[in-house]
Amino acid sequence: MKHFDFEEERVKQEILKLKAKRVLIQLPEGLKPEATLLAKIIEKSGALPIISADPCYGACDLATVEAESLSVDLIIHYGHSKLLKYERVPTIYVEARATMNVNAAVETALPVLENWQKIGLTTTVQHVQTLDDVKEILLRAGKTVVIGDAGRLNYPGQVIGCDYSNAKSIANDVEAFLFIGGGKFHALGVALSTSKPTIVADPYEKRAYSVDKEAEKIIKQRWASIEEAKKAKVFAVLVGLKSGQKKLEEALDVKKKLEESGKTACLFVAKEVTPEVLMEFPTVEAYVNTACPRVSLDDASKFQKPVLTLNEALVVIGELSWEELCRKDLFEN
Amino acid sequence: MKHFDFEEERVKQEILKLKAKRVLIQLPEGLKPEATLLAKIIEKSGALPIISADPCYGACDLATVEAESLSVDLIIHYGHSKLLKYERVPTIYVEARATMNVNAAVETALPVLENWQKIGLTTTVQHVQTLDDVKEILLRAGKTVVIGDAGRLNYPGQVIGCDYSNAKSIANDVEAFLFIGGGKFHALGVALSTSKPTIVADPYEKRAYSVDKEAEKIIKQRWASIEEAKKAKVFAVLVGLKSGQKKLEEALDVKKKLEESGKTACLFVAKEVTPEVLMEFPTVEAYVNTACPRVSLDDASKFQKPVLTLNEALVVIGELSWEELCRKDLFEN
Repeated sequence: MKHFDFEEERVKQEILKLKAKRVLIQLPEGLKPEATLLAKIIEKSGALPIISADPCYGACDLATVEAESLSVDLIIHYGHSKLLKYERVPTIYVEARATMNVNAAVETALPVLENWQKIGLTTTVQHVQTLDDVKEILLRAGKTVVIGDAGRLNYPGQVIGCDYSNAKSIANDVEAFLFIGGGKFHALGVALSTSKPTIVADPYEKRAYSVDKEAEKIIKQRWASIEEAKKAKVFAVLVGLKSGQKKLEEALDVKKKLEESGKTACLFVAKEVTPEVLMEFPTVEAYVNTACPRVSLDDASKFQKPVLTLNEALVVIGELSWEELCRKDLFEN
Repeated sequence: MKHFDFEEERVKQEILKLKAKRVLIQLPEGLKPEATLLAKIIEKSGALPIISADPCYGACDLATVEAESLSVDLIIHYGHSKLLKYERVPTIYVEARATMNVNAAVETALPVLENWQKIGLTTTVQHVQTLDDVKEILLRAGKTVVIGDAGRLNYPGQVIGCDYSNAKSIANDVEAFLFIGGGKFHALGVALSTSKPTIVADPYEKRAYSVDKEAEKIIKQRWASIEEAKKAKVFAVLVGLKSGQKKLEEALDVKKKLEESGKTACLFVAKEVTPEVLMEFPTVEAYVNTACPRVSLDDASKFQKPVLTLNEALVVIGELSWEELCRKDLFEN
């Protein structure tokens, strides 16, 4: 519990204010080990806690249906900032800010950044409160620092799995990006969206490294998937039902376009797009996934068939060129 | 398409009658390879077909939420007979009766059945229409044949994954059961519910075999899981949200009982109970699954922690003895 701020007092006050009897707890995978402890805190506030055990990769995946089905009075969504414009069930977002100091990791990043002068700063919501300090360290090292704010996310410099608008908005003004946070997932997003060198300063592992080689590998895989899909005749267009991922109109539109270019296309709906789910359909030769774009980009090697994003499907039918796709944004769906 | 009756004409008529514009197709894993062909038939009837790609193990798992979210006018649920008392969305069940002849498989079962005189006959909905012929073959071989009807399922002799009432209703009148159908899954259910020798006559593989050794192995695994759970302090009680699997009251009840016997217990909700989902919670030492009992019984070896059925949890807290559980029914939840 010591690494993150779970805002116990605010949670208690909110439960009391709403007189909540049943509370649904939703956590990303990294915070699930704290689930039973967080449930106990809620129970002490007089409400019945129910933990959603399903995978949760973002605030796009708010457990509204579960909450309604279980007559829940309040959803406490941990680890992500608010994304949906409105919620059908009262919801509070506990962003789970990291309490650790990131300075040591940033110091180790300085030598890795030596070839570049103008640095763009990005991070996840867990570390947004550190950006001023990080900026200070970089300035002292003689760098110029830019933090983007495209107005779509909650904090300047923030990125989420599928939205790098803050990084993109300053991509032309910087030579490289420094991402503060754990793991490669978000840093790869920055690299893929901006085509700029991207360095991770990981405060958990206290080390810094580039993700550029991995980003390049993903680009090559995307090209290969698109080429393979061009040969496919039978397509399935996947629709997701998660609150922030449902794109039925876009799916119907790409289905029509695929059919107009001589392909067969079926609409599929899936709760989670996994290799196990897709392997049950031997007659389908390629998928277009209108739900989470990260499924296509990060898990390509796990799928037996090409799983394209919406924009990639437009390359298959010739509406977009590969070069235009690369300039546009692999994440734009 | 040739092995099963997909009732194309009835499907077309139903679409026309309801003037359905959008149709959701739901199929068990074994029929998913036919999904795109079935979609084409529906498209020819003038409706937009949407295929549910998620796993579907029974009519308990009717895709109502998906249908409502996509404004679907009709669900076509293939491969299972009606189970829910009413549906929130218009639904037709296409039972997908097998068109193949089962006689050859039954003939190969005769030598395996030689030690028993009184035989109980069971099958899934795919083969219920063959039971008269099968009975005839057994009678000609000098056997006595009993087909049970407890009134809970749609056809005499029918079993489904979690309901063996038709077999149980005649268990005292027979020496062994003959199950007509593919695979061990349902035959194991018959063996576990009745404690009688159970032989599969598999028309797909044209062979017959006993599942008794495997049933015995499962019983031993259940005993071991219960013993391990007795040592656990932190429990999670899993609630499923599938239309026919939601048992919130039972879950609340067993949570209370666990707590009264000195355990810690949290409520969890999950779309699919899989090893991957449960492994994210290192603080939980044992699970009680109030959703599908087959998850506990068939997949025990895949889970790192004990996953008990409701009745098994009662053994842990001493409300039921192991012997009583075995007499009762492992499937009763």
